[in-house]
Amino acid sequence: MSAGARPLGPVPAGFGAIDGELAIAGLRASELVARAGNTPLFVYSAALIRARVTELRQALPARVALHYAVKANPFAPLLALLAELVDGFDIASGGELALALAAGIAPGRISFAGPGKRDDELAAALAAGVTINLESEGEAARALAIAASLGLRARLAIRVNPDFDLKGSGMKMGGGAKPFGVDAALVPALARHIVAQGAEWRGFHIFAGSQSLDAEAIITAQRETLALAMRLAAEAGVALVHCNLGGGFGIPYFAGDQRLDLPRIGAALDAGLPALPARFADTGFCVELGRYLVGEAGVYLTRIVDRKHSHGETFLVCDGGLHHQLAASGNFGTVVRRNYPLANASRFAAPAEEIATVVGCLCTPMDRLAERAHLPQSAVGDLVALFCAGAYGASASPAAFLGHSPAAEMLV
Amino acid sequence: MSAGARPLGPVPAGFGAIDGELAIAGLRASELVARAGNTPLFVYSAALIRARVTELRQALPARVALHYAVKANPFAPLLALLAELVDGFDIASGGELALALAAGIAPGRISFAGPGKRDDELAAALAAGVTINLESEGEAARALAIAASLGLRARLAIRVNPDFDLKGSGMKMGGGAKPFGVDAALVPALARHIVAQGAEWRGFHIFAGSQSLDAEAIITAQRETLALAMRLAAEAGVALVHCNLGGGFGIPYFAGDQRLDLPRIGAALDAGLPALPARFADTGFCVELGRYLVGEAGVYLTRIVDRKHSHGETFLVCDGGLHHQLAASGNFGTVVRRNYPLANASRFAAPAEEIATVVGCLCTPMDRLAERAHLPQSAVGDLVALFCAGAYGASASPAAFLGHSPAAEMLV
Repeated sequence: MSAGARPLGPVPAGFGAIDGELAIAGLRASELVARAGNTPLFVYSAALIRARVTELRQALPARVALHYAVKANPFAPLLALLAELVDGFDIASGGELALALAAGIAPGRISFAGPGKRDDELAAALAAGVTINLESEGEAARALAIAASLGLRARLAIRVNPDFDLKGSGMKMGGGAKPFGVDAALVPALARHIVAQGAEWRGFHIFAGSQSLDAEAIITAQRETLALAMRLAAEAGVALVHCNLGGGFGIPYFAGDQRLDLPRIGAALDAGLPALPARFADTGFCVELGRYLVGEAGVYLTRIVDRKHSHGETFLVCDGGLHHQLAASGNFGTVVRRNYPLANASRFAAPAEEIATVVGCLCTPMDRLAERAHLPQSAVGDLVALFCAGAYGASASPAAFLGHSPAAEMLV
Repeated sequence: MSAGARPLGPVPAGFGAIDGELAIAGLRASELVARAGNTPLFVYSAALIRARVTELRQALPARVALHYAVKANPFAPLLALLAELVDGFDIASGGELALALAAGIAPGRISFAGPGKRDDELAAALAAGVTINLESEGEAARALAIAASLGLRARLAIRVNPDFDLKGSGMKMGGGAKPFGVDAALVPALARHIVAQGAEWRGFHIFAGSQSLDAEAIITAQRETLALAMRLAAEAGVALVHCNLGGGFGIPYFAGDQRLDLPRIGAALDAGLPALPARFADTGFCVELGRYLVGEAGVYLTRIVDRKHSHGETFLVCDGGLHHQLAASGNFGTVVRRNYPLANASRFAAPAEEIATVVGCLCTPMDRLAERAHLPQSAVGDLVALFCAGAYGASASPAAFLGHSPAAEMLV
């Protein structure tokens, strides 16, 4: 890296070069853009998603099911692929319910978490036979009333607000006062009430945080989650039918980030689960992952439209930007902006020769894709690849901002 | 304010109460929601926009035209209203060009700024007869070539990257190395080249920053802008046909923010412009405003779906959230989160009695609409109003995030 350059995040494994160009799933970037008709474009690699699932299946005990958090990426072909690969799906809205059902996912594999579920969303989910992860006592009352009015037996689990959080987590979801879940102390009474009301009891959903790269922190959170779930079931006098251990498995976005030690997490679960008391022999366990399943499998491709110099600095202006990849611009809940992994896709095999700041086409100083990146000499027309774009990209960005077209999406 | 409460931003003037409920343009919040059919809903007050334009016309010299930056809010009925009220429109994409033309705005009133204009966008704008604010020498070459290939005379202005910035600005757009505009030192040669190529020369666009509440800083930036434009025109030996003085007029979002002293800015312009040398007698001047014209005229209405307690804190969970109002959640380019102005619209006239954190329906801790706000005792079903929602709201938020429906929009 030259003096003055800022480091780029690590390019995920699994991408190659053909004739010097970035290749995704054996297809050159320019070929993918030609197929889509234009830039900008999100490309998701089915092979990389399959490989990640295989890796997880090998690392985790067979007893731990794999759930996908649809919010990470709801692209329909990707959901259809995951329907073949994972066991369950967690949705966060009525819109995601419709997407999951349209992807052919059986309602019995779907659970619905999230604060602020509206009555119409609860009704649709209950009618479909989806498990509701209740976020509050008020929501429990509404769900029971709606099920009764529909003449249905509600499938209900409780999302627990644990008294601990996931250390080193990008986003803490538990610990202290939170809008998510029911405080642990209030859970036993609510669980008894739900069972007494004749609902189908589905257990607990406990989510302590997300985007952690620290295996030891995840192991600790899983151990605490397991202990909490068993204690709450015992206190409530209900069976622990199912326990969603949450997620939190992070991916490396920034220079210096170390990959998560997945085998270590798997080994800890493998050691802990068989040691559970006999009354948990039939308990179903799962981890719920979004970003970890699909984040590194996605690449955002955008084209350099302008190359300019200002006060001694070089700017590469692209036809994409934060309207498609908000988090990469450093403006989505980030305090300090750091560079995501990025490359000149047209010159993927070329050595770095210049320092350039890569910006998007939005007329705002927030629209930066890479700050002072060390790149090959880049020209107008070159394709730029922004990696780690498979999760919280297209669907989590302000697509209508400044009136540009939405990005195309493609699963290859 | 009770101990432990965090202050809310100031509710803009012009809103009243009917039967204790928030009224916008004389209509109760519940009536507006009934008209829209559902929450969440953006309501924009035409009366408040008209009043703001009147205020500007009174404060600014008649010689200074008023331009609207479409990016602030491209809602079609609002554009149609502004088409009657202001003089010019600045667009930032081919999409905004289509919206402006659809609103019946004459192309001669439109200018197109923004980095990364694609060839197809340039072609559409040139064909329509829109003025292009050139962001670089490369863009100038492309625009001239496209115009030649279309057999058209291009209407071209240069966006200048000034050597100064707007002090106290929320977003600095000038000063030092920037992706916006052409460095001042390079402008005279480019202006001569454009004129020599036979283009219709339209002058300069100089934008030093945005969202400033400091009249003195804006006056200084305008004075420097004027001096720079005159110097560049003289150096280039071209007429200063038109000079866009930029914007930067901010609105109060947060507790303690003071309103911009508009009459003071107007008085300074009124004193400065007549003193210009005679060769600028025919120069057209404008200020370009987005947020200042429409920001305070908009209210985002969302309904409380759940009321819950966690570890001693009260949470009001709404059916809206950061997917419609990203900036208000504090996650759009903000380092320190502060509360926007917010109220219980159903109990607008009621005294504050409790401290509650107002969150959205997204399953992420980022989705906070107000942190520890001092509010009337609030119930499920109440409407919540988030103010200052007229600019950079609906179109600048990740609407598809978590699969919720887009918000309705309404001009009343």
